[in-house]
Amino acid sequence: MKIPQPYLLFLGDVSDPLAAKTARGIHAWRPETCVGEMSLADCEVSLDLPQLTPEEAAQQGAKTFVLGTANAGGYIPKHWMKAITDAITSGLNIASGLHQKLTDIPELVALAEEHQVSLFDVRHQQPELSVGSGVKRTGQRVLTVGTDCSVGKMYTSLALEAEMKKLNLDAQFRATGQTGILIAGEGIPVDAVISDFIAGAAEWVSPDNKADHWDVIEGQGSLFHPSYAGVSLGLLHGSQPDWLVMCHEMGRPHTRHLAHHPLVEVEECISLNLYSARVTNPNAQLAGISVNTSNYPEAEALAYLAALTEKFNVPATDSVRFGLQSIAEFLSKHSITKE
Amino acid sequence: MKIPQPYLLFLGDVSDPLAAKTARGIHAWRPETCVGEMSLADCEVSLDLPQLTPEEAAQQGAKTFVLGTANAGGYIPKHWMKAITDAITSGLNIASGLHQKLTDIPELVALAEEHQVSLFDVRHQQPELSVGSGVKRTGQRVLTVGTDCSVGKMYTSLALEAEMKKLNLDAQFRATGQTGILIAGEGIPVDAVISDFIAGAAEWVSPDNKADHWDVIEGQGSLFHPSYAGVSLGLLHGSQPDWLVMCHEMGRPHTRHLAHHPLVEVEECISLNLYSARVTNPNAQLAGISVNTSNYPEAEALAYLAALTEKFNVPATDSVRFGLQSIAEFLSKHSITKE
Repeated sequence: MKIPQPYLLFLGDVSDPLAAKTARGIHAWRPETCVGEMSLADCEVSLDLPQLTPEEAAQQGAKTFVLGTANAGGYIPKHWMKAITDAITSGLNIASGLHQKLTDIPELVALAEEHQVSLFDVRHQQPELSVGSGVKRTGQRVLTVGTDCSVGKMYTSLALEAEMKKLNLDAQFRATGQTGILIAGEGIPVDAVISDFIAGAAEWVSPDNKADHWDVIEGQGSLFHPSYAGVSLGLLHGSQPDWLVMCHEMGRPHTRHLAHHPLVEVEECISLNLYSARVTNPNAQLAGISVNTSNYPEAEALAYLAALTEKFNVPATDSVRFGLQSIAEFLSKHSITKE
Repeated sequence: MKIPQPYLLFLGDVSDPLAAKTARGIHAWRPETCVGEMSLADCEVSLDLPQLTPEEAAQQGAKTFVLGTANAGGYIPKHWMKAITDAITSGLNIASGLHQKLTDIPELVALAEEHQVSLFDVRHQQPELSVGSGVKRTGQRVLTVGTDCSVGKMYTSLALEAEMKKLNLDAQFRATGQTGILIAGEGIPVDAVISDFIAGAAEWVSPDNKADHWDVIEGQGSLFHPSYAGVSLGLLHGSQPDWLVMCHEMGRPHTRHLAHHPLVEVEECISLNLYSARVTNPNAQLAGISVNTSNYPEAEALAYLAALTEKFNVPATDSVRFGLQSIAEFLSKHSITKE
């Protein structure tokens, strides 16, 4: 299931930098996996990596050609096909986080078979899953949870992994969404599994491990989101986190895309997440609060974070503005260290 | 999407009465939809309906041949194929709740097309779904919830619908599992949808309705079940119930199939269900408790139910032993009546 790395990042012909957020995420968090980038004539976005053809990238050791930009409707445009087929004939695997499946395009399936490479549709692929068992697993786990969608759960997970590694903790990001999977090279998109298997998918993503190992699990959605709470609860139960990091956006007025639905209070959200986590791990506790404060001046942001720290007795920080060192140090203090 | 009724119930060649529980459920709750039964030579189970061939059943108005028994592994045995193909050539649609899809058997697909009939794989079929919106819908809703799987949520829903109809309430059972779907002729198996769409499926199952209409929605799983809680939460949010009926088995020692996981207390389970329901319907309340007391003598059962009634100030009853009239009357008192 693991996507072979390193990658050649394909940027297509996008003009909106936001559309390249998958490629940007891979480059930001795993620069060592990026041999180069490839874009079409009209592309206005660059990661300042070497521009390589698939053949050049393959010669430099690249193993997989990654479709690293989102596209309206999630379709693979016809004028991208030449780049993709060139990549296959150069011996590269193809990985895509788009809705449309590579494996639904017979021409690509046939060509991939001829050249003995694999097509990875990360939004759709998953191992054979079992339903969750709830049986306690070995190793330590921290899960990012949130008051809403798009409050920085993936970013916080990756930044926390990086800070924990700086403290010599054996930390490993565990991906549960397509961008995260392309960054990590493996994982399961939990919002795409059959609903009976959500908790089972979470158990698969974070298996038994050494006592001093940390899985930093990417959370999804929110227990208070009317559209996605089922995914969040199954992921929470299956992850069996020892520690939760609550993610939040300061001042967000209502649940994303649902103007009729006010955003839950941080305190209430922490309470329900801890309560629900204890169904499968009675020792679950809060390790910190990761807040996007970007809409506020620094002094207001700091005052808000100080109030949260005071109230919940854990570090509260902005993962971009102030970094996650404080939460990593909190976890380090509570970590099981190798004998 | 509606499965055409009435049915010819196919019992196959089962010897275990429990294996025929789908056929038995359809006959018990919708006798008017059952033209007859058909079984193979070695079948030891009967519903005491007229034994009919597909051709005879079609002549008597049957529209669909229902595979009404479960089978080890959920596969369609080879020796059932003649009965199924006979049904198709007699002009009957085929409906199945088995894991193996009718539509994965090319011979059946071709024959169905030739005879212009439909194949309904109720465990797999679903309309094009959207994610849940959380927007309040019109009409009244009651949802069965539970402390565990297999505590009588479908039975309670159907029995409550029947009791509410006796009180002249406009009540309608809404199915969320395969047996329920075969009984109702429509619905969505929520545990089989892609996890992003659980709440959206629940919204679809119980659409806007007249102010005095009642949907009685079949619940699934439990918020405290480590395997299935995500399904339960999405269904709870999407259903937007005005009223909950908590289902429970008296004396069950632990969560079904999970001996390491003690069963949640009724009080705790009611609290979390009401709390979570209020995310999408702030007026959600408890309407009653439906308990399977079959492992206890009547006096003990009555004392237990009386204590629950006293504690929660709603009717507590055993749906089989004592009936659900008390809960239906409670709902009737609180019902919006037609102008």
